[in-house]
Amino acid sequence: MKVAIVGATGYGGIELIRLLRQHRHVTEISVFSSTQAEAPLTSTYPHLQDVYKGILQSMDTEELATEYDVVFLSAPPGVAATLAGNLLEGKAAIVDLSGDFRIKEPSIYEAWYGREAADATITGQAVYGLSEWNQEQISKAKIVANPGCYPTAILLGLAPAVKNNGIDMTSVIIDAKTGTTGAGKNPAPMTHFSEMNESMKIYNVNEHKHTPEIEQQLSEWSEEADAVTFTPHLVPMSRGIMATMYATCTSYSSAQEWIDVYKAAYEAHPFVRVREDGFPATKEVYGSNYCDIFLDYDARTNRLTIVSVIDNLVKGAAGQAIQNANLMNGFEETEGLEFVPIYP
Amino acid sequence: MKVAIVGATGYGGIELIRLLRQHRHVTEISVFSSTQAEAPLTSTYPHLQDVYKGILQSMDTEELATEYDVVFLSAPPGVAATLAGNLLEGKAAIVDLSGDFRIKEPSIYEAWYGREAADATITGQAVYGLSEWNQEQISKAKIVANPGCYPTAILLGLAPAVKNNGIDMTSVIIDAKTGTTGAGKNPAPMTHFSEMNESMKIYNVNEHKHTPEIEQQLSEWSEEADAVTFTPHLVPMSRGIMATMYATCTSYSSAQEWIDVYKAAYEAHPFVRVREDGFPATKEVYGSNYCDIFLDYDARTNRLTIVSVIDNLVKGAAGQAIQNANLMNGFEETEGLEFVPIYP
Amino acid sequence: MKVAIVGATGYGGIELIRLLRQHRHVTEISVFSSTQAEAPLTSTYPHLQDVYKGILQSMDTEELATEYDVVFLSAPPGVAATLAGNLLEGKAAIVDLSGDFRIKEPSIYEAWYGREAADATITGQAVYGLSEWNQEQISKAKIVANPGCYPTAILLGLAPAVKNNGIDMTSVIIDAKTGTTGAGKNPAPMTHFSEMNESMKIYNVNEHKHTPEIEQQLSEWSEEADAVTFTPHLVPMSRGIMATMYATCTSYSSAQEWIDVYKAAYEAHPFVRVREDGFPATKEVYGSNYCDIFLDYDARTNRLTIVSVIDNLVKGAAGQAIQNANLMNGFEETEGLEFVPIYP
Amino acid sequence: MKVAIVGATGYGGIELIRLLRQHRHVTEISVFSSTQAEAPLTSTYPHLQDVYKGILQSMDTEELATEYDVVFLSAPPGVAATLAGNLLEGKAAIVDLSGDFRIKEPSIYEAWYGREAADATITGQAVYGLSEWNQEQISKAKIVANPGCYPTAILLGLAPAVKNNGIDMTSVIIDAKTGTTGAGKNPAPMTHFSEMNESMKIYNVNEHKHTPEIEQQLSEWSEEADAVTFTPHLVPMSRGIMATMYATCTSYSSAQEWIDVYKAAYEAHPFVRVREDGFPATKEVYGSNYCDIFLDYDARTNRLTIVSVIDNLVKGAAGQAIQNANLMNGFEETEGLEFVPIYP
Repeated sequence: MKVAIVGATGYGGIELIRLLRQHRHVTEISVFSSTQAEAPLTSTYPHLQDVYKGILQSMDTEELATEYDVVFLSAPPGVAATLAGNLLEGKAAIVDLSGDFRIKEPSIYEAWYGREAADATITGQAVYGLSEWNQEQISKAKIVANPGCYPTAILLGLAPAVKNNGIDMTSVIIDAKTGTTGAGKNPAPMTHFSEMNESMKIYNVNEHKHTPEIEQQLSEWSEEADAVTFTPHLVPMSRGIMATMYATCTSYSSAQEWIDVYKAAYEAHPFVRVREDGFPATKEVYGSNYCDIFLDYDARTNRLTIVSVIDNLVKGAAGQAIQNANLMNGFEETEGLEFVPIYP
Repeated sequence: MKVAIVGATGYGGIELIRLLRQHRHVTEISVFSSTQAEAPLTSTYPHLQDVYKGILQSMDTEELATEYDVVFLSAPPGVAATLAGNLLEGKAAIVDLSGDFRIKEPSIYEAWYGREAADATITGQAVYGLSEWNQEQISKAKIVANPGCYPTAILLGLAPAVKNNGIDMTSVIIDAKTGTTGAGKNPAPMTHFSEMNESMKIYNVNEHKHTPEIEQQLSEWSEEADAVTFTPHLVPMSRGIMATMYATCTSYSSAQEWIDVYKAAYEAHPFVRVREDGFPATKEVYGSNYCDIFLDYDARTNRLTIVSVIDNLVKGAAGQAIQNANLMNGFEETEGLEFVPIYP
Repeated sequence: MKVAIVGATGYGGIELIRLLRQHRHVTEISVFSSTQAEAPLTSTYPHLQDVYKGILQSMDTEELATEYDVVFLSAPPGVAATLAGNLLEGKAAIVDLSGDFRIKEPSIYEAWYGREAADATITGQAVYGLSEWNQEQISKAKIVANPGCYPTAILLGLAPAVKNNGIDMTSVIIDAKTGTTGAGKNPAPMTHFSEMNESMKIYNVNEHKHTPEIEQQLSEWSEEADAVTFTPHLVPMSRGIMATMYATCTSYSSAQEWIDVYKAAYEAHPFVRVREDGFPATKEVYGSNYCDIFLDYDARTNRLTIVSVIDNLVKGAAGQAIQNANLMNGFEETEGLEFVPIYP
Repeated sequence: MKVAIVGATGYGGIELIRLLRQHRHVTEISVFSSTQAEAPLTSTYPHLQDVYKGILQSMDTEELATEYDVVFLSAPPGVAATLAGNLLEGKAAIVDLSGDFRIKEPSIYEAWYGREAADATITGQAVYGLSEWNQEQISKAKIVANPGCYPTAILLGLAPAVKNNGIDMTSVIIDAKTGTTGAGKNPAPMTHFSEMNESMKIYNVNEHKHTPEIEQQLSEWSEEADAVTFTPHLVPMSRGIMATMYATCTSYSSAQEWIDVYKAAYEAHPFVRVREDGFPATKEVYGSNYCDIFLDYDARTNRLTIVSVIDNLVKGAAGQAIQNANLMNGFEETEGLEFVPIYP
C-alpha cells in the first residue's frame, strides 16, 4: 500500500507517520506540502531523524491521484475541498482529516464554519468515518470524512444511549476538555506555555464548529435528536480529550443496566473499552487508538453521566484515519494500531 | 489581633500564614498541631525561612480559648467538632475551614460524609461563611463554618440566577474542575506527579460531599431548589477551580440581560468580578481572593452557561476565612486580601 | 512617588504593576506603550480588571522626564537606548530592565547582542543594579541598569566565593534552568505548550548574551576572573530560575565552612536566604523577591556546588527593579516587596 | 520466547509489557510479584484492560528458572540478589533492572548504597548491559546487569570522548535532569503533584548512587579515569532525562571535529542518534529507545559541552533490557523496539 500524506507538517500529519511506520501493509509513505516544499521533514521535526527521510514534495494532484493507494488529507481548512474533485478521478482511497466534508448541509456548514462549503456532490459522496458505527459504508467508500476529535469521543460515548432510546434527547449537555495539541502547531497566545500552564480555560462557548457535526450524527440515530449544549475547555496537557456527558434517562434505572447496554454495544469493537470498574483518565489511553468509556446513573436526579476519553491525535485524528483506510482496503481494522497506551 | 491557626501544616494553614503576614491588624500568629508539636514550621515548609519563625505548639484548648482573638481551625475532619465546644466558651472568634459544621441536618452529614455529625447545638450556632451573601450574619457570629472550595465557586456563580428565579431549579448541572492542592498535602496515587501530569481525571461522580452543602444553600435561596448534578474533575495544575454550570432559563433571553443581573448583584462586592468581556481562566485569579464570573445564553437550547473561577486555597479556603474574620471583627472586608493575581 | 512604566504589556511590566500596588509610597502608576497606545491594559491582561484601570498612553518623553519620580523601562531591546538621553535631563530616577546599558564595553555588547551599543556616555553613567552588592552606588544613581534574570541568580550565588578568593576562577561552570516566562510574552515554537510540556530543552549553548554580563561583574570582584561556561536550559514551568554552579576550591574544605562564609556575606540582606538545611526548589521562592542559596563541598573532587534560585520575574526583573528604586529614593529596601512565596 | 517479569507493578515492569507486546518472538508474558500476588495487573493499571490479562503470580523460583527463556527482574533493591543464585541454575537468560549487580567492588557498593552487596560470584558473572559498548559480552552472558537510567544517558554521551582520549578526565562535570518516573510508583512528598508542578528541584548532591556506576565504566575505558561530579535534578515532567556534560578538551578544537568523532562512533548503532543540527529536547525521544546526542566546543574556555537525552523508562530501563535480551538470544537488536518517538 503506497500512502501519501498531504499536510504532513501538522500534528495530524506526523502522527500518521508515527503510526504508519508500524503498519505491515505500507510499503511507501510520501509527504506533500503546499507551503514548505523541498525541505526534509526533519528540519521541522528533528525527532524523525533516521525514522523518516522523505522530502516534502510540492503538491501534484495528478501524481496523488494515480500513484497512491491511500491519500490522507490533513491540510488546513479548504485545501481538501479544492483537491478532492481531481483526486476522486484517480485510484486512491481518500481520507480527509479536515472538516471540509463532514457537514452535509451547506448552509449549516457556512453558518458554523464561516466559510464557503465544499462542492455538495463531493460532500454527498463522503462517508462519515466514525469507524465503529459506519463500518459497512466506510468499507465501500471512495472518500471518507474523518470525524473531528471532540465528535469522536462524544459520539462513541452517546451512541448506545441514543440508539437504545434511553435518554431524553433535549437534555444532552456535553462538557468537554482537551489538551493543547487540538489547537494545532501554530504558536498562539492561548497555548503559550507561560499562560497555559497552571491554567484551565474555556473557549468557543456555544459556538464551536464541532457542534453541528455532533448533532448531524445524532439526528441519524434518533428522530428525537435536538440541539445539544457543547462546551469545550482547554486543559494544561498536550494530548487527550475527556468528554463528560449528561442526559436525563427515559429508561433503565441503575448504573449496571447502563453498563450492560454499553458492553453489548461495543463487544465486537476492539478500540472501544467499556471500563470494568471506575472512570478512565486521559493518560490511560495516551498514544493509543482506544476510546475508554464509563458511566454512572444518579437516582436523585435521574441523570446519566457518561465519560469518554481518547487521545485526540490518535483515535481523534490519525488513528481513526488509518482505521478507516484499513476498512476501505479490506485490511484488519486493527492493523498498525495495536499500540499499548504509554503509561505513565 | 492575636491569631491562632490549628492545623498549620496543611495547605490551608500555610496559606493563612502567607495572607495574614500582610494583614495590618494582626500582631501575632501562633500555630498549633496535634501531630507534629515542637517542630519549627520551616522543617515542613522551608519556604517560610525568615518569614515565620514559630514552633508548632501542642494543642491547649484553654490557651486557644482565652489568649487569641481569632482561631482558625484548619485541621482534618473531626478535630474541630471535638475542640469547638470548649473554644466557644472563650473570647476568640472561630473560623472552621473543615467541613465539620457546614451541614445543618445531621442525617445528611452522616450520609455524605460517612462519619458522625458534630454536636447539633454547635452546628446550629455556626454561620455559613459565604462572605458575599451572609455578610450580616457573619458579622455577628461567634463561629463561622467556612465554605468548601467547590461550593464557594459554585454558589457565587449560581446565586444571582437562583435569587432572581431565572432558572429551572431541576435543571442545574455543575461540571467542576480543580487543581491538585484541593486534595491536600498527603502524597497519594491520584496526585502522584508521574500519573497526574498530562492527565485529566474525574472522581467521586455523584457522591462528592460538597453536594449537600451546595443544595443546602440553594434551598435557602429558593423554594424550588432541588437535587443538583455535581461532577468534580482533577486537572494537572496545582491551584485553581473552574465551575462550569448549566441551567435551563425561565426568564431573560440574552446573554447581556444575564450579565446585567450579575453585575448588579455583585456591584458592591470587591472580590467578585463579573468579567467585562469573555470567560475567565483560572490563572487570572491565581494567588488572589477574586472570584471571576462570566456567562452565556444559548437561544438554541434555552440554556444558561455560567463559569466561575477561584484560587481554591484563597477564596476557596484561607482568603475567605480571613474575609470572614474581618467581618466578625469589624475590619474592612478586604484587609490583608488585596493581592493582585500572579500572572502569568 | 509617581511612577511610569514604559513597555507595560510585557511580563516585566505587569509584574511591576502587581508589586507596586502593594507599595506604600506609590501614589500613581502610568503605563506607556509605543505599539498599543490608547487601549486599556485590561484588554491584554483581563486579570487586572478592577485592579488597574489605566489606559496605555503613547510615549511622551518630555512628560516622562518631568512628571514622574521613577520611570521603569521594560521595553524591548533598543528602546531604552533611544529614550534615555532625554529622560536623563528630567527629574525621574530611571531603572532600565532591558539589557541596553548593562555592558560597559561597546565592542563586547555588539559581539554578544548583535546590535549597536547604546551611547557610551549613558552606559558609563548607568549603575549595575545588583542590589545586594552595589547598594551604595545605586543609592546615588540617576540611572540603573537592572541585571538580567540569569545574572541575578548566578552572581548572588557566586559572589561570596569569588570575593573570598575561595575558588579557581578558570573552573567556573554554570548550568542554569529557567521557566518559560523568561522568553517573554510572544508566542513562539520553543514555548508552544504542546511542544514544551513534558520536555526539557537546552538553548543558546555558549552564546547566551547574559554571559558577558556575568563575566563583567566577576572581573570587578576578582583580578583572576576568566571566561565562564554558562549553559541555559528551558524547563516546563512558567516561573523560576535555578542556577547550579560548579567551581574547584582553592580554600576551605568542608560544606560547613562554606555555608558560614555565605551566611556572613548575606546576614544583612533580607532578600537573600542562605538555606538552613538542604537545597532550595524554585517553587519555594515563587512570587517573592527572595534568592535562596545552598551549597555543598565534595572532597572527592575538591569541587564546590552552589545552587541559587529566584523567581525570574521578581528578583530577576520587577522585584529587583523596585528594590533599586527604593534605594535610589531613600526608602526601605524591602518596601512593597515583602511577599511570602506562594507555596504550593 | 517465554518471558517472565518479576516486579511487574513498578513502572519498569509495565513498560516491559508495553514494549514486549510488539515483540515478534515473544509467545508468552508472565508476571510475578511477592507483594500483590493473585490480583489481575489491571487492578493496579486499568490502562492494560484488554491488553494484558495476566494475574500477578506469587514468586516461584524454580518455575522461573525452568519455564522461561528470559527473566526480567525489575523488583526493588535486594530482591534480585536473593533470587539470582537459584535462577542461574536454570535455563533462563536473566536481565536485572535493579542495581544489585552493577557495582563490581562490594565495598564501593556498600558505601554508596548503604546496604549489603550481593554475592560477589554472581556480581562477577553479571555483564554490564550498556548495549552499544558491551555488545559482544552481552551476547554471551547468562546474566546482565541493566544500567541505571542516568548512567545510560551519561555513558553513551561520554564514551566517544573518553575512548578517544579527547578530554581531561579530572574535569568531568555532569549536570543531569530527570522526569519524575525515575523516582518510581510510590507517592512521596518530593513527587507530589502540588509541590512538584511549577518547580525545579535538586537532590542527592554528590551522593547519588549512580556515581560509582559511571566511574566504574569510565575506568574501564580510560586509565586516566577519575572521580566525576554528578548532580541530579528533578524536572516537572513524567519522562525523560537530559544529561549536560562538561569537560576540558585535550584534543580537537572545533565542534565539527567532535561531531565527526561521535558520528563515527555511533554509525553502526541504530538507537544512538548523533543529531544533525542542534541540541535535542527530551520530548524528541519520548516513548522510544533512542538516545540523542549533540555537542558544542567553546574556544573561549576550551570546554566541550555534550548533551544526551533518553526516555528514562525505555532506553534508561525497559527498552535497553529488551535490547540486551535480544542480544543474549541472538535476535535483531532492534526487535520490538522500533517505536517512533511520540511527538508532541
